[in-house]
Amino acid sequence: MSCKQFLKRTQIKNLKSIFPPEDLLLTPEQKLIFGTDSSRMLDMPWAVVRPKSPEQVRDFLYFAQKERIPVFPRARATNMVGACVPRGGGIVLSLLKLNRILDLDEQDFVAVVEPGVITYELQKALAAKGLFYPPDPASVRISTIGGNVSTNAGGMRALKYGVTRDYVLGLEVVLPGGKLLNLGSRCHKNVVGLDLTRLFIGSEGTLGVFTRIYLKVLPKPPFTASFLVGFSDLDQALDTVQQIFQAGILPTALEIMPDLVLKCIEDIAPVPWPKGTNAVLLIKLDGHEQGVKQNLVELEKICAQASVRLKGLGKEEEELWELRRLINPASFKLRPTKMSEDITVPRGKIKEAMERIKQVGQKYGLPILTFGHIGDGNIHTNIMYDVGDDQEAANAQKAKKEILRIVLGLGGTLSGEHGIGLTKAPFISWQVEPEVLMAMRQIKKVFDPYNIMNPGKGY
Amino acid sequence: MSCKQFLKRTQIKNLKSIFPPEDLLLTPEQKLIFGTDSSRMLDMPWAVVRPKSPEQVRDFLYFAQKERIPVFPRARATNMVGACVPRGGGIVLSLLKLNRILDLDEQDFVAVVEPGVITYELQKALAAKGLFYPPDPASVRISTIGGNVSTNAGGMRALKYGVTRDYVLGLEVVLPGGKLLNLGSRCHKNVVGLDLTRLFIGSEGTLGVFTRIYLKVLPKPPFTASFLVGFSDLDQALDTVQQIFQAGILPTALEIMPDLVLKCIEDIAPVPWPKGTNAVLLIKLDGHEQGVKQNLVELEKICAQASVRLKGLGKEEEELWELRRLINPASFKLRPTKMSEDITVPRGKIKEAMERIKQVGQKYGLPILTFGHIGDGNIHTNIMYDVGDDQEAANAQKAKKEILRIVLGLGGTLSGEHGIGLTKAPFISWQVEPEVLMAMRQIKKVFDPYNIMNPGKGY
Repeated sequence: MSCKQFLKRTQIKNLKSIFPPEDLLLTPEQKLIFGTDSSRMLDMPWAVVRPKSPEQVRDFLYFAQKERIPVFPRARATNMVGACVPRGGGIVLSLLKLNRILDLDEQDFVAVVEPGVITYELQKALAAKGLFYPPDPASVRISTIGGNVSTNAGGMRALKYGVTRDYVLGLEVVLPGGKLLNLGSRCHKNVVGLDLTRLFIGSEGTLGVFTRIYLKVLPKPPFTASFLVGFSDLDQALDTVQQIFQAGILPTALEIMPDLVLKCIEDIAPVPWPKGTNAVLLIKLDGHEQGVKQNLVELEKICAQASVRLKGLGKEEEELWELRRLINPASFKLRPTKMSEDITVPRGKIKEAMERIKQVGQKYGLPILTFGHIGDGNIHTNIMYDVGDDQEAANAQKAKKEILRIVLGLGGTLSGEHGIGLTKAPFISWQVEPEVLMAMRQIKKVFDPYNIMNPGKGY
Repeated sequence: MSCKQFLKRTQIKNLKSIFPPEDLLLTPEQKLIFGTDSSRMLDMPWAVVRPKSPEQVRDFLYFAQKERIPVFPRARATNMVGACVPRGGGIVLSLLKLNRILDLDEQDFVAVVEPGVITYELQKALAAKGLFYPPDPASVRISTIGGNVSTNAGGMRALKYGVTRDYVLGLEVVLPGGKLLNLGSRCHKNVVGLDLTRLFIGSEGTLGVFTRIYLKVLPKPPFTASFLVGFSDLDQALDTVQQIFQAGILPTALEIMPDLVLKCIEDIAPVPWPKGTNAVLLIKLDGHEQGVKQNLVELEKICAQASVRLKGLGKEEEELWELRRLINPASFKLRPTKMSEDITVPRGKIKEAMERIKQVGQKYGLPILTFGHIGDGNIHTNIMYDVGDDQEAANAQKAKKEILRIVLGLGGTLSGEHGIGLTKAPFISWQVEPEVLMAMRQIKKVFDPYNIMNPGKGY
């Protein structure tokens, strides 16, 4: 370790003047967990600070800019691409203690929260008031609103309801140097100047730190139902997706699980589909009872040729979705290590993408699971390998690169949900033109002239 | 006129090398109409160019930057705030000849269009394929997608479906200097780098010129219905709005017309509400037939106390909305001149905003109509006066300023739909902090270093 990785005594003194001892972590034991995220990469931070107020964030970012110390904001660190890893060294800024729900306004249809609020906790509090915040990333029970906003998190309900971006009305942000900006408002419509609110959404902590988030909420749909349907081949399932849309049905969620995924689940749990089922669609509907029930009748008709059709109402609904949640644990039956990609292609290119990804798996002798948000063209891709096997690990890397090339060749994108972080940063120039990347970096300079905010991430 | 307002002979020669005679307008008769927009302000442009291809846009913006000539992009110029007026002189860039629908993809659920396509024409073409592009600004039959994107246009369906921003997946833009950038993609999800696509949406032509727009489309809802309901006072109507949401109903559109608006309409047309009706709600629903019909039954129940309840199904539906469309023509019965504001407040502050705006009208002896998108808190405000009466004209200006102050005091915004343009530019600092304005201007410099793109507009 170079001495650059350590803080000067005067710097530590400064930090102590901002944070009480319990919110300034300096020992390796305390800091270790803050060096990693769901990517499992690890870099030890120089220190960890845990502000409880926007004022502390301001004081800290004033100090950090003055001292040119890199700052790595994080909350629950469920990020898959290393966006929370303090690569290169610096101070981790944990926002978990800024975790108050400040206002749930049933008149304004607005929620005002601090970044460290767990998304599911907010959803529960809203539901008690008949309100609904739609974004539901798979991590919803453990990830925070702040993290969701900084990655523009998606989720299964994105098909009908859109992503995090579509629900953020305003942001209070602190910039390096300590300036606090108010962007947007608590109004549902607002077209005043450039849309800086949305510039910060999905910026992966590279521009500033959110201290307050204004969210648009909806009336809670009074009824939901789900539908599981199995087919003997993938083509039938994909044709069915098209027919569902043609019938004017916009499901809340529409998930696909092809053959290899089904086999994995069969290995660890009893399943409701018969042998010979090679593709399953899982569909969720919401709205008013009679409308949802009418949709179920139409789905039954559309899927007349299916090998299995199961309606889920009330408690049974969750049982159907439990099968979907088994994919990740089940995939470890194949190999001990998982490389998760969240590639996205234009919706009409899904079939070709899935077929060609399968061929890549065959070429490298690796099981590759593809599944997920078919309605959005957002296909989760788990490349399974053994990290202890050098050959497999190398092949997994090669397979990943080939898959990204295939996806981009189909007009797709490197990431539909997870973002770029560290792990996809080497590939961003495959997708984004040099002039566009340059513009992004120049815009970053407007907010972060000394490049101290989550440096090396994203773009 | 100063000589600065005229082009040099070499510059005209350059323009002639890019545009054929029919697309380079130089005479006052040809140019006049391009000097104004729906704000009715007028500044004569130095020239008007009408590219038919992105290549011409590139050549022109290369030339314009080299010569430091201001560029004023426009299409149908339905803008209400002077965003298309070539204030200060320069060349108007009309995008009406870039008007091809390039692709309507039923597999990808994507439409690819040039900026000059009329929004309603796109909607018709999509409907023929069972597809749906929700944004519906009042100008939908005459305004263009390019204009809608550059102002982030809203409309009545925003309550359920969001605004233009929520449907733009990608943009091809040409910057001053002629660089062409590809932003976003045709994927429904995309989180790669900073969200420059959304930075350009609502930027009012101040950053660059769209030459191609990628839009997300939805399956067309198979059934719609409408419901008109009248009340003896405004409070009942506003309480009803709250009850509709509490019932978990998210209408496609939810419009309010209070007493003064009703009186105006009564003066020019037969109306379906009885005497003593002082507030009317107009509600549109869409979805599947049985769900919509269930909602209608619930609405009947919620509105049991109303003075009139009218369901509109099939052809009758349009008759109900015809009443809403009469507001603007009817308001000219009160005074010959209209000053249209599109202020927006947090939803729960609508009542107070409407009451206080009424008081402003009384104070200045001017009829002020408030009506519109109550579900969004977006209240159209028509200040009626006689432009020939100096006293009234001065009072209208004073009333406007007072209304803007009231709205901002309630946590509202200067504009929910129209944008800032020229007419609201003097007030933007009432709402937006100096640091935020400075950031916007620095970001503009990244794309437009010599400030030639629609200078003086927006921020």
